[in-house]
Amino acid sequence: MERRKFLTTGALGAVATAGTITSAPAIAADVTELNIVSTWPRDFPGLGLSAQRLAARIEELSEGKIKVNYFAAGEKVGAFDSFDEVASGNSQAYIAADYYWKGKHPGFAYFTSVPFGMTNWEWNAWIKFGGGQALWDEMSGEYGLKALPCGATGTQMGGWFNKEIESGDDFKGLKMRMPGLGGDVIAKMGASPVSLPGSQIYENLVSGSIDATEWVGPYNDYFMKFYEAAKFYYGAGMHEPGGGLAFGMNAEWWSARSTWEQAIITAACMEEHSAQADEALANNGIYLSKLVEEHGVQVRVFNDDVYDAFGVAAEEVFEETRDHSPLAAKINDQFQLKLREIGGYQAIGDIAYTNQRNRVLGLG
Amino acid sequence: MERRKFLTTGALGAVATAGTITSAPAIAADVTELNIVSTWPRDFPGLGLSAQRLAARIEELSEGKIKVNYFAAGEKVGAFDSFDEVASGNSQAYIAADYYWKGKHPGFAYFTSVPFGMTNWEWNAWIKFGGGQALWDEMSGEYGLKALPCGATGTQMGGWFNKEIESGDDFKGLKMRMPGLGGDVIAKMGASPVSLPGSQIYENLVSGSIDATEWVGPYNDYFMKFYEAAKFYYGAGMHEPGGGLAFGMNAEWWSARSTWEQAIITAACMEEHSAQADEALANNGIYLSKLVEEHGVQVRVFNDDVYDAFGVAAEEVFEETRDHSPLAAKINDQFQLKLREIGGYQAIGDIAYTNQRNRVLGLG
Repeated sequence: MERRKFLTTGALGAVATAGTITSAPAIAADVTELNIVSTWPRDFPGLGLSAQRLAARIEELSEGKIKVNYFAAGEKVGAFDSFDEVASGNSQAYIAADYYWKGKHPGFAYFTSVPFGMTNWEWNAWIKFGGGQALWDEMSGEYGLKALPCGATGTQMGGWFNKEIESGDDFKGLKMRMPGLGGDVIAKMGASPVSLPGSQIYENLVSGSIDATEWVGPYNDYFMKFYEAAKFYYGAGMHEPGGGLAFGMNAEWWSARSTWEQAIITAACMEEHSAQADEALANNGIYLSKLVEEHGVQVRVFNDDVYDAFGVAAEEVFEETRDHSPLAAKINDQFQLKLREIGGYQAIGDIAYTNQRNRVLGLG
Repeated sequence: MERRKFLTTGALGAVATAGTITSAPAIAADVTELNIVSTWPRDFPGLGLSAQRLAARIEELSEGKIKVNYFAAGEKVGAFDSFDEVASGNSQAYIAADYYWKGKHPGFAYFTSVPFGMTNWEWNAWIKFGGGQALWDEMSGEYGLKALPCGATGTQMGGWFNKEIESGDDFKGLKMRMPGLGGDVIAKMGASPVSLPGSQIYENLVSGSIDATEWVGPYNDYFMKFYEAAKFYYGAGMHEPGGGLAFGMNAEWWSARSTWEQAIITAACMEEHSAQADEALANNGIYLSKLVEEHGVQVRVFNDDVYDAFGVAAEEVFEETRDHSPLAAKINDQFQLKLREIGGYQAIGDIAYTNQRNRVLGLG
């Protein structure tokens, strides 16, 4: 409400010095500038368009009182430099998957998605109403950042392979693009995980620098043309079951915002957080059919043996993550507790229903 | 943008006649009044609090330029009179489950939730990015209304019974509260469904006027105290697998709003649409434990025989619904197509993952 008081005072002040109001300093002073650096290429279907929609919506909802300058990956800084760009205060916000920063602290991974973790809805429940946001604030706060959920892909597909995967051993020696703790899981199984931004995956896969990659799901993956180099497309992986992307702001900038500006930014993030996931789900079935029909993609699902091997490896990864620091242990332990509380219920809720529905209707 | 121009003009005008600005007619003229009639009792945990949060958020995001007067069920009109109240233009918006109006037109049911239908996320994908909103506009438009999604409960529990349900025949002669097309399904199985607003269910169950009831899920149901009269609580039912609640506005009022006002209302609805579902899911596991531990509730799930009987009855209901009118047939057919396209994918997406996760972690 401080801001509105300022506004009123400003308007009267301008009139009081009426003889000099040829330019409009009072209006300019009222505008908050927000530079957003994104990790997605410009106009990138799915993720990139969603980020651009968010930027436009903040301007629209604020009636232009928050002026947004949106920079796609590489337009101001490289995708993976956006963390430092915002932490330093050069820009005010990034749009990214926070697990990109797990090299700075593995705790960040939980605020995107972790192996055997929460699906998108479970994660939303945890973040918004289960104590997750407070933990996220603690994690980001260590680096001078404040993040909000802003975009989600749903449970990601298991990835693109140039051979069939029939047991955990098939990951031995595999060079695969997989960021986050999922990458650590397949490393335990003998693979060599690499983390590459979206714009660099295709060239590495086609040149053979990597053998396999995961990205998102059929709608987002379709445009990446991975099928040119890898024909086997695996159903839901363990590595990124949901969660969300981040609108990561410079914490000092955020706390200097008025209550109203914070409300506008939060509402825009929450609206887009759902919209991105909804858009992906609305299109995944359609684009999976296109991949199969237009490009001869072979769709598979991981069998129980593969999932069991993932499970053993994931347990080791979580133990190592806990050992990193007290904060990493705290985040992991609260996450695992909430996963069981929230996800455990779903076994007689959404999941029980959908299994019965699909059985009765013959879906899937 | 028309509105902003008006604002500027208004402010200058007020200063020009400076001698007379003791009252503030320019400010009052700038405020849009929005009377909301709700189908939920005041301060009702879950649904009611969510509706009140939405009302407050519209005021906050609009900086008070939309003045909201919120009336809980019975404060202005009875819960089930809110449709006529808004269609007539007496009030500007209702908050309700649109399937309450299936007596006016069965097409409304699809915009809340139908038996064997979409889960909440699937429904969101359909409404926002799969053509659902256009169909909803067509349906509501027939009655001078325009609705937006605003609140969701997730897959609802199967209900509260005073006996175990082991086959479809156990529904014979049962008097059960179940609105929407779900009620029609159990009617086909020999039950007598009744539609009662939330505030009247408890008294009817305790008095024996009804034998059984469904409501929402553990978090919402806990406060209803149904366990005093019915100890068997069944996991996910077929009748209301997700979908959403409605912020139903008078269409003429909506179309007279500025682009900015429409954006503010839409963003607030979308934010709350997710928040209500997230809040329920964050609490369902906790409240299910409380029901069991504090009140000796017996948790069960419907077996395959019961679900098969639901399936046969649901097929009849959908045929009858199609026969109602061309619009009902059009809505049903598009819904069923999108369910298979969107839900079919989930069988290798979220659902495949969650089944594997729960198996490996021993959840549920």
